[in-house]
Amino acid sequence: MALIEDLKWRYATKKMNGKSVPQEKADYILEAARLAPTSSGLQPFKIFVISNKELLEKIKPIAMGQSQITDCSHLLVFAAWDDYTLERITNVLSEVYKERQLPEAQAQQHIDQLWGMYEPLGQEWQQHDAAKQAYLSFGVAIAAAEQKVDATPMGGFDPAKLDELLELNKLGLRSVVLLPLGYREVENDWLVNLKKVRAAKEDLVTEIA
Amino acid sequence: MALIEDLKWRYATKKMNGKSVPQEKADYILEAARLAPTSSGLQPFKIFVISNKELLEKIKPIAMGQSQITDCSHLLVFAAWDDYTLERITNVLSEVYKERQLPEAQAQQHIDQLWGMYEPLGQEWQQHDAAKQAYLSFGVAIAAAEQKVDATPMGGFDPAKLDELLELNKLGLRSVVLLPLGYREVENDWLVNLKKVRAAKEDLVTEIA
Repeated sequence: MALIEDLKWRYATKKMNGKSVPQEKADYILEAARLAPTSSGLQPFKIFVISNKELLEKIKPIAMGQSQITDCSHLLVFAAWDDYTLERITNVLSEVYKERQLPEAQAQQHIDQLWGMYEPLGQEWQQHDAAKQAYLSFGVAIAAAEQKVDATPMGGFDPAKLDELLELNKLGLRSVVLLPLGYREVENDWLVNLKKVRAAKEDLVTEIA
Repeated sequence: MALIEDLKWRYATKKMNGKSVPQEKADYILEAARLAPTSSGLQPFKIFVISNKELLEKIKPIAMGQSQITDCSHLLVFAAWDDYTLERITNVLSEVYKERQLPEAQAQQHIDQLWGMYEPLGQEWQQHDAAKQAYLSFGVAIAAAEQKVDATPMGGFDPAKLDELLELNKLGLRSVVLLPLGYREVENDWLVNLKKVRAAKEDLVTEIA
């Protein structure tokens, strides 16, 4: 029952105490995010890990002034591809087939099939789809709560301003969601002692047997 | 290192052997999905758990004929809200504030704030956002691989057809992603012995110290 216990332990920490998360714990969380599956294995996103204090100070006002931005030791920024291109798909799948020692012709067939599916869906759809894959990885990163590191899922920020600050458009990326890593300051966190509320199982889950 | 080991063990099982996953293991995975955080705690999705064989046979052609649909014992269908409405937001947040014994006026303020943010973004944006929250929960469900249950993330299906079959539109939902639960049939699975390929850490992660 390790994961369930970890998920009950974690919460969206509102006040962090400024202590640093050891690098090996941050690396563990990043490794979990890296190992997450994604649609067709494309991993259509990057993760920026920001611990530079000056930069974090600049990000804070972009994220509604939330204190975790500067009280965390590592801010993870999940940034998704701004479109699916034939080149991007080819780069990933060629590497997968090479690593698996499978024929190039088979890779090409797979690439053509995927591109035939993604191209007509258009850039906006592609951006949302890439963001969904990033959210999957983000979910796996959060499940790495077994590290007993506090991580606050954060959607409340201005993506356009963050993209500009980090110059993500030059990299063909768009910021999607943030995850500051740090440690809870129990005495000053209004959320820490409030009940974790989730939909009851019977409201969330419908079984069709 | 439990999660990392579990993530290395898991893979997108292509051939399942038809054996049933014990209900308590399926329930554990659902509990992990239920405990996953979501933006503002809205949990804007439902999970359908289908083990009815006739229904699975009908879903299979909608999912490109993939054999896991009928060889799994539980098919999880993550279905997201088709829009954010004031009523839906009010229902969730009123309950959260009640459970936390916080004043109703505070709940109302929070509701107004969220609705003021979501309403102008429009239905298509809302649908994508709800789907992203479902993907987060989906990621946490996949991290429940510690149950040593095989689960294949599956985006290759026709959502409109599945919505019709399950009458999801009547519930204000849209199918987003599938997760069949079962057990690998090692001797007939072309993927089981192929190398797991992921982007190298240096390609996925950029550190700004």
